[in-house]
Amino acid sequence: MTHRIAILGASGYTGAELVRLIATHPTMRIAALSGDRKAGMAMAEVFPFLRHLDLPLLQKIEEIDFSGIDLAFCALPHATSQAVIAALPRDLKVVDLSADFRLRDPAEYEKWYGKPHSAPELQTEAVYGLTEFYRDEIRAARLVAGTGCNAATGQYALRPLIEAGVIDLDDIVIDLKAGVSGAGRSLKENLLHAELSEGTYAYSAGGKHRHLGEFDQEFSKVAGRPVLVQFTPHLLPMNRGILATVYVKGDPAAVHATLAAAYAAEPFLQVLPFGALPSTRDIRGSNFVHIGVTGDRMPGRAIVVAVLDNLCKGSSGQAIQNANIMLGDDEAAGLMLAPVFP
Amino acid sequence: MTHRIAILGASGYTGAELVRLIATHPTMRIAALSGDRKAGMAMAEVFPFLRHLDLPLLQKIEEIDFSGIDLAFCALPHATSQAVIAALPRDLKVVDLSADFRLRDPAEYEKWYGKPHSAPELQTEAVYGLTEFYRDEIRAARLVAGTGCNAATGQYALRPLIEAGVIDLDDIVIDLKAGVSGAGRSLKENLLHAELSEGTYAYSAGGKHRHLGEFDQEFSKVAGRPVLVQFTPHLLPMNRGILATVYVKGDPAAVHATLAAAYAAEPFLQVLPFGALPSTRDIRGSNFVHIGVTGDRMPGRAIVVAVLDNLCKGSSGQAIQNANIMLGDDEAAGLMLAPVFP
Amino acid sequence: MTHRIAILGASGYTGAELVRLIATHPTMRIAALSGDRKAGMAMAEVFPFLRHLDLPLLQKIEEIDFSGIDLAFCALPHATSQAVIAALPRDLKVVDLSADFRLRDPAEYEKWYGKPHSAPELQTEAVYGLTEFYRDEIRAARLVAGTGCNAATGQYALRPLIEAGVIDLDDIVIDLKAGVSGAGRSLKENLLHAELSEGTYAYSAGGKHRHLGEFDQEFSKVAGRPVLVQFTPHLLPMNRGILATVYVKGDPAAVHATLAAAYAAEPFLQVLPFGALPSTRDIRGSNFVHIGVTGDRMPGRAIVVAVLDNLCKGSSGQAIQNANIMLGDDEAAGLMLAPVFP
Amino acid sequence: MTHRIAILGASGYTGAELVRLIATHPTMRIAALSGDRKAGMAMAEVFPFLRHLDLPLLQKIEEIDFSGIDLAFCALPHATSQAVIAALPRDLKVVDLSADFRLRDPAEYEKWYGKPHSAPELQTEAVYGLTEFYRDEIRAARLVAGTGCNAATGQYALRPLIEAGVIDLDDIVIDLKAGVSGAGRSLKENLLHAELSEGTYAYSAGGKHRHLGEFDQEFSKVAGRPVLVQFTPHLLPMNRGILATVYVKGDPAAVHATLAAAYAAEPFLQVLPFGALPSTRDIRGSNFVHIGVTGDRMPGRAIVVAVLDNLCKGSSGQAIQNANIMLGDDEAAGLMLAPVFP
Repeated sequence: MTHRIAILGASGYTGAELVRLIATHPTMRIAALSGDRKAGMAMAEVFPFLRHLDLPLLQKIEEIDFSGIDLAFCALPHATSQAVIAALPRDLKVVDLSADFRLRDPAEYEKWYGKPHSAPELQTEAVYGLTEFYRDEIRAARLVAGTGCNAATGQYALRPLIEAGVIDLDDIVIDLKAGVSGAGRSLKENLLHAELSEGTYAYSAGGKHRHLGEFDQEFSKVAGRPVLVQFTPHLLPMNRGILATVYVKGDPAAVHATLAAAYAAEPFLQVLPFGALPSTRDIRGSNFVHIGVTGDRMPGRAIVVAVLDNLCKGSSGQAIQNANIMLGDDEAAGLMLAPVFP
Repeated sequence: MTHRIAILGASGYTGAELVRLIATHPTMRIAALSGDRKAGMAMAEVFPFLRHLDLPLLQKIEEIDFSGIDLAFCALPHATSQAVIAALPRDLKVVDLSADFRLRDPAEYEKWYGKPHSAPELQTEAVYGLTEFYRDEIRAARLVAGTGCNAATGQYALRPLIEAGVIDLDDIVIDLKAGVSGAGRSLKENLLHAELSEGTYAYSAGGKHRHLGEFDQEFSKVAGRPVLVQFTPHLLPMNRGILATVYVKGDPAAVHATLAAAYAAEPFLQVLPFGALPSTRDIRGSNFVHIGVTGDRMPGRAIVVAVLDNLCKGSSGQAIQNANIMLGDDEAAGLMLAPVFP
Repeated sequence: MTHRIAILGASGYTGAELVRLIATHPTMRIAALSGDRKAGMAMAEVFPFLRHLDLPLLQKIEEIDFSGIDLAFCALPHATSQAVIAALPRDLKVVDLSADFRLRDPAEYEKWYGKPHSAPELQTEAVYGLTEFYRDEIRAARLVAGTGCNAATGQYALRPLIEAGVIDLDDIVIDLKAGVSGAGRSLKENLLHAELSEGTYAYSAGGKHRHLGEFDQEFSKVAGRPVLVQFTPHLLPMNRGILATVYVKGDPAAVHATLAAAYAAEPFLQVLPFGALPSTRDIRGSNFVHIGVTGDRMPGRAIVVAVLDNLCKGSSGQAIQNANIMLGDDEAAGLMLAPVFP
Repeated sequence: MTHRIAILGASGYTGAELVRLIATHPTMRIAALSGDRKAGMAMAEVFPFLRHLDLPLLQKIEEIDFSGIDLAFCALPHATSQAVIAALPRDLKVVDLSADFRLRDPAEYEKWYGKPHSAPELQTEAVYGLTEFYRDEIRAARLVAGTGCNAATGQYALRPLIEAGVIDLDDIVIDLKAGVSGAGRSLKENLLHAELSEGTYAYSAGGKHRHLGEFDQEFSKVAGRPVLVQFTPHLLPMNRGILATVYVKGDPAAVHATLAAAYAAEPFLQVLPFGALPSTRDIRGSNFVHIGVTGDRMPGRAIVVAVLDNLCKGSSGQAIQNANIMLGDDEAAGLMLAPVFP
């Protein structure tokens, strides 16, 4: 069975990553691609790496005939998604990759994104797309909200620990290292090769990064009480990959056992043997998450390190995994591509 | 139908790339892996990026039972391959990725590799594995010799031009830029990140690089007369990818038309519109070759630029493409993975 | 004796490199800095790497009092320089780093830069700033035009050979590899880390790059007849450094001897022993040029490889070397900083 | 006045960095260079980036005549230094860059380095070389022990805070990101460009890294009671630079004020305005340290970020700063080189 897919916002990195993954997907076929400023162009002009594929031309969204479309991925910028999705046919399945539907509470949305939400009714309808923790809701959903890539990494390290009560909820530090593709194709001086390569720095430190909204919402829900974490992201001179080093207070063996048990049956989440720590090199270009745990010389402290590819498992791969569920496909369809090394 | 595959020399980069590609291949199953110094280890220890796969342990070659194996890839170092392949069952299909069987003439082998060939009878039997030009021979072959990655790149740019007689055969310059994975996992100071990154230099310049043996053999065969080229490789601060800038004397439009016609039906060889030139970024991790042609302000001079991924199309992808043919599979089986960008 | 210096256009990479070099220059003191869009800001805000220096605030050019200034470096964009320099006091010494005064012939300027020159009388007055070949003219000059960074690299490899008549003037190929800082701080997708790193491609191939105007002017002047070269630049995933691989027809030993003799007394130009080839890593951050020569297996062909740091010797270092001469200083003052490795 | 300098172990990265810095030092002259395995070679063969300098050939240590040497830098591997320094003339001033004399307590040395110290009397004599905190002792010292590069970074962020009592001493996390040159010129797979670039991972996590010995010794000394910290280093795909993100419990404003006051008169230590955080790009190739402080949304928590160049301020630059003091020179002599950007 073939599913006809539309990708809205195909001229950015997450849009291109969707096309890359669907290129070898067994049941999805790309029926429409939008790219407002590049409408009329071929994808091979925008992304020459896709030139071997037979793809529809880029269109404006309003030119797309959605009648034969089974599911739309929406890879548009934050804030734009709200208006676009509100205008789509109400029975069209949608996986949104923006930040617009991640937070359920309109007040929280406004707090982190600086303006009121324009489609609060959809905000309520949307299911949070962290697949392994929301499978049933996703299966029944019409609209799924892709998670933040940093937010996904931190949650894979922490959710089972918070749920199991094996760590101190008031002393959690997430020190995160991120490759640059998470910033998208934006033209900013700090993203230039000449300024980014061969260096590193922290940004949005001290409780300012928007993905904290997701941490707050999800961790508090799991804990059944408010949970706040410290979160410091750093930009690294690499393109793909996020590594979260998470400092927790709890028994290291219990921390490891809890994560290993929680993810034992998961196809994409791999918990390493105790003491082994993962590298972003080992998941590049793939949908896998590697998680390691070690203790400290100070008893009662543990370090959890989780890695994933921000464009794949952190964004477009997650979106396809969710879409597979929504369409009744094998959840892993098209996503077992091995990482690329070296 | 499933084909049982052995990979000899699985602990190097080309061995790992074979595993990566076979991981999503529709008919190949890995039945045995060798790695002499790492015998007894799991691949996940040697290459953690493969840890999601269910793979046999690494063995010594002599421990492998070849009775149920349909085809062996031999990814061993140069010179080692000769002895190993000579000792394999004589009816086992073999694709060799080393340099040992690329040159048909034992004297040429000795000239470029510095010692006599130890299995000259196999040297005669072996088919040169540049797929698009040796399909029929590969289909009938038992032993196929993978080409040099640089040699493949240069030939994709030049073979149809030499055959068609549209360029001057006595004035060909191949200026080549190569990523570092082509040097393998060797421990050398110049391959360290601290010494390779942020710089470039030429090596083996002036007619010394061993892949010249392949150029000489193949171009002279195609031309029906001796053809010598100038060839200067440069090492670049990147991991995958080769770009060959080829300077020829001939009519640029004829050069472009000849290449476009020669490759029109090829699934992996893409000739860009006249004047467009390719980037290695657009073929990373894939089996595709992009080729561009442009003219010069001086009439009668043309520039051909060809790019491929040295580990994939230049080595392990080519090997699988050849194996597909030898096993009666679709030639492109398992090889349509889209490039990884960014 | 102290020289008071103004830098016009201090918010770009070449402006910042001038400040870096002058920071430890024995006689130059920075008295004024301009940066139109950033007027009023401190350099430490624009370039935090300069925060340890006590520098004047950025001003608009029209706010600068030039009465006490001994020399101005003009690091403005191409085309802007013409108007700005025409409006400066006529007795102010100026070293221009833009392309505006490199070509003496207004028709050539218009051909390569696409519009008429607005200050043709200054174009005639300007001295071409390739220091080692124009020392006497620079000493007497009021206005010196910095060369193109690619143009400098190619000329260091070729000028003595053309002058000595040891190579065929009708068959010269310059295949050039350049780091990205030569493109300046421009916000373009292809200069983003995510798109530039881990890849390479040719650009402005086939006789289109503007630095060909300089090659044509200078080589023809030296030869006393028109000389055209082929020139293909490639963008590399590194920040600083240019490597030119130059293919010539001539006796390799004579080529090497000619260059070695020509540069024997030069403080910054180092000719390596015959057969040794240079790396851009070995001149990073410095004013040195390394040049190597080797032969080919085909007699009568030689390869010359020259490397320099585009921001230093190819631009701001050259500018200071010329300014030293114009101000009566030691030519090497402030420029003997060793390269940075690794 | 000229000081005659010997560098023992000149064929490694810190040795080469010493030569780079001394090349433009006003009073130091290199009189002898040792490199046991490369004895007899010119530095230009080992490090072509130094070929413009007139340097003595590499010798074996036992061939060096120390009679006219004013000071020796010892850039030998850990454990080797002990024996070599014990055999040097007892009145020769020595700055050691190895780990051999950083820890005063022989038991601590054995605990962290795995074997007994062979020169415990020198261990007692040696002064810990963190310049800004040991100036008087360094002035009077014959033997100064260079600090670990990670240990220096962490101490610049924390010492004044511990001394002033403005933070909780029992809850300090140092999450550190380090470039690869700190690992030296060792030939290891994980340091190859193909394996290090485009990825990151934590190493020696959980209280295992040897620089913890220095943290323990120094922080406990300053506090007057035992202080243990958590310390997790990460390897980053860059060559130079260390960034330490330090999580402390204390009032952010007090933390900032304490650091700003402590370093107000220091030539190389720059405390940024509150809320601004530093980048390693801004100190590359220089002796400067940039330090930033910010608060968190959770009151009573502060984040301190410190950056330095591991080869310069973290090793060879620090060594020269200490030598300047020991020789009666201006402490900053030869060290005011501006960082290299981009």
